[in-house]
Amino acid sequence: MPSNPNLTDIDSLKVCIVGLGLIGASFAKAIRANGFQGQLSAWVRSESTAKTAEKERVVDIVSQDVSPVAYDADVILLAVPMGIMKSVMQVLKPVIRPDAIITDAGSVKQSFVNEAREVFGTLRHVVPGHPIAGLEKSGIDAAEAELFQSRMVLLTPTEETDSAAIDVVSQLWMLTGARVESLDCEHHDKILAATSHLPHVLAFALVDNLSQVSHAEDIFRYAAGGFRDFTRIASGDPTMWRDICLTNEDALLESIDSFTAHLAMLRQSIKECDGDAIDALFKRAKTARDAHVDKW
Amino acid sequence: MPSNPNLTDIDSLKVCIVGLGLIGASFAKAIRANGFQGQLSAWVRSESTAKTAEKERVVDIVSQDVSPVAYDADVILLAVPMGIMKSVMQVLKPVIRPDAIITDAGSVKQSFVNEAREVFGTLRHVVPGHPIAGLEKSGIDAAEAELFQSRMVLLTPTEETDSAAIDVVSQLWMLTGARVESLDCEHHDKILAATSHLPHVLAFALVDNLSQVSHAEDIFRYAAGGFRDFTRIASGDPTMWRDICLTNEDALLESIDSFTAHLAMLRQSIKECDGDAIDALFKRAKTARDAHVDKW
Repeated sequence: MPSNPNLTDIDSLKVCIVGLGLIGASFAKAIRANGFQGQLSAWVRSESTAKTAEKERVVDIVSQDVSPVAYDADVILLAVPMGIMKSVMQVLKPVIRPDAIITDAGSVKQSFVNEAREVFGTLRHVVPGHPIAGLEKSGIDAAEAELFQSRMVLLTPTEETDSAAIDVVSQLWMLTGARVESLDCEHHDKILAATSHLPHVLAFALVDNLSQVSHAEDIFRYAAGGFRDFTRIASGDPTMWRDICLTNEDALLESIDSFTAHLAMLRQSIKECDGDAIDALFKRAKTARDAHVDKW
Repeated sequence: MPSNPNLTDIDSLKVCIVGLGLIGASFAKAIRANGFQGQLSAWVRSESTAKTAEKERVVDIVSQDVSPVAYDADVILLAVPMGIMKSVMQVLKPVIRPDAIITDAGSVKQSFVNEAREVFGTLRHVVPGHPIAGLEKSGIDAAEAELFQSRMVLLTPTEETDSAAIDVVSQLWMLTGARVESLDCEHHDKILAATSHLPHVLAFALVDNLSQVSHAEDIFRYAAGGFRDFTRIASGDPTMWRDICLTNEDALLESIDSFTAHLAMLRQSIKECDGDAIDALFKRAKTARDAHVDKW
């Protein structure tokens, strides 16, 4: 591992991506498109992904076996579902260099930190990361070099993490066009529970709820653009979102409870025909949202 | 009123629009753009709307007084906030022809039917309508001739309503490019409570909830595309949505309660780390939504 890396050092790195789904393959395409000169390898599970990766030259070397692509990697990006993150690290541990930098792209950070500590015993070379980018599509076929352009990547390094390792991971993500920021992993999980995990839970719950009522056909038939946008996130990958719910349980439950209490209050205002209270809440919400729309 | 109107008859009609907001002005622009040859007038409240309408020739005659534009109208479209619908009809009643067709563009239909009956004593010439189209913008400046293109307009005529009146209103809306369907007004209000009013209530409640927590700035700062789409409807007109909540109270409360119970069930699955139950719900939701996306 280079000890004070700059962009020249980045170009001498061997980067191994574990998993070439939407995020992993987009990362490979993005850093390559932006001039990364180092070696790019990938360890993938499925044969069809391996074939696509080879055919489209997404990486230099792709393998369904871990050793040939991971043994000499300087940086390993774990872009696999959170539910298998730990078992993937357990397979990697005896294979990789002891000083290899481990980073990931999971949506929940505290659980990743805990699992990484359990597997490696130290977090010195572990740089937890979370690109806030995604699509309802998934898999290598949906991957695009521009996915991270102007998006945010949040790193949540611990106090143990080497600053040189953080630098390397930051520079790789910056190469994708993303803006990189660091924050505390517990704070990350709370923020994301509120802005991402809770909305997904609400959208999934709403669509499932409506699909089960007696006039479900009419409901979807007469749904307009507002409903389409509101429920777009309910077309996300169920397994990925299940894993997120299970790994960010505490922060998510807190967000659900806070929202439920707020909704109950609004329900009460509607029941009491309290137009002023409803109006005030709607106006506050519109003001808050409109104030941030320009920044998005 | 022509007794079996066809498109030729439509072109001899005098149509008066009450209110030139987004819906009223878009309706005027749309039927004009699609060749309507009859007379178009408008009764508006604000001087600036009147001036814009005159300058842009949105209608033939615009007035802040009701009589000059409404006294000889064959069809009157009420495109005003639901909260003032009844008082507007009370002002119109002594002015308009007794056989003038009254239609509206409100989002809730049972309350409009009740109010129209109270004011006119009969629903013979009343054709309740609801164009399922809208933007987060409002006012005459946001109006566009294409607003209703391929959108649905739901008419909820009562058994009392003259079929000739329904025909006239249908043909006018079809001129805008909309698809026109009829359904029972109580059913309409239940469907719309589920697909439109509930999602708006959830979006307003969520944004207001998040804007009040201690780390609100970070929440909006790190919000991604999913959150932006999910909360877009929370930028809607607070007054209009307050009126909808107040006029569709029963159906909306029923929808809120059904959703709240469903969310509580999902919360329980998350609390119990019941991955299979979460997975099953998310998969059902994704399947239901994806099955309808193509039709939207």
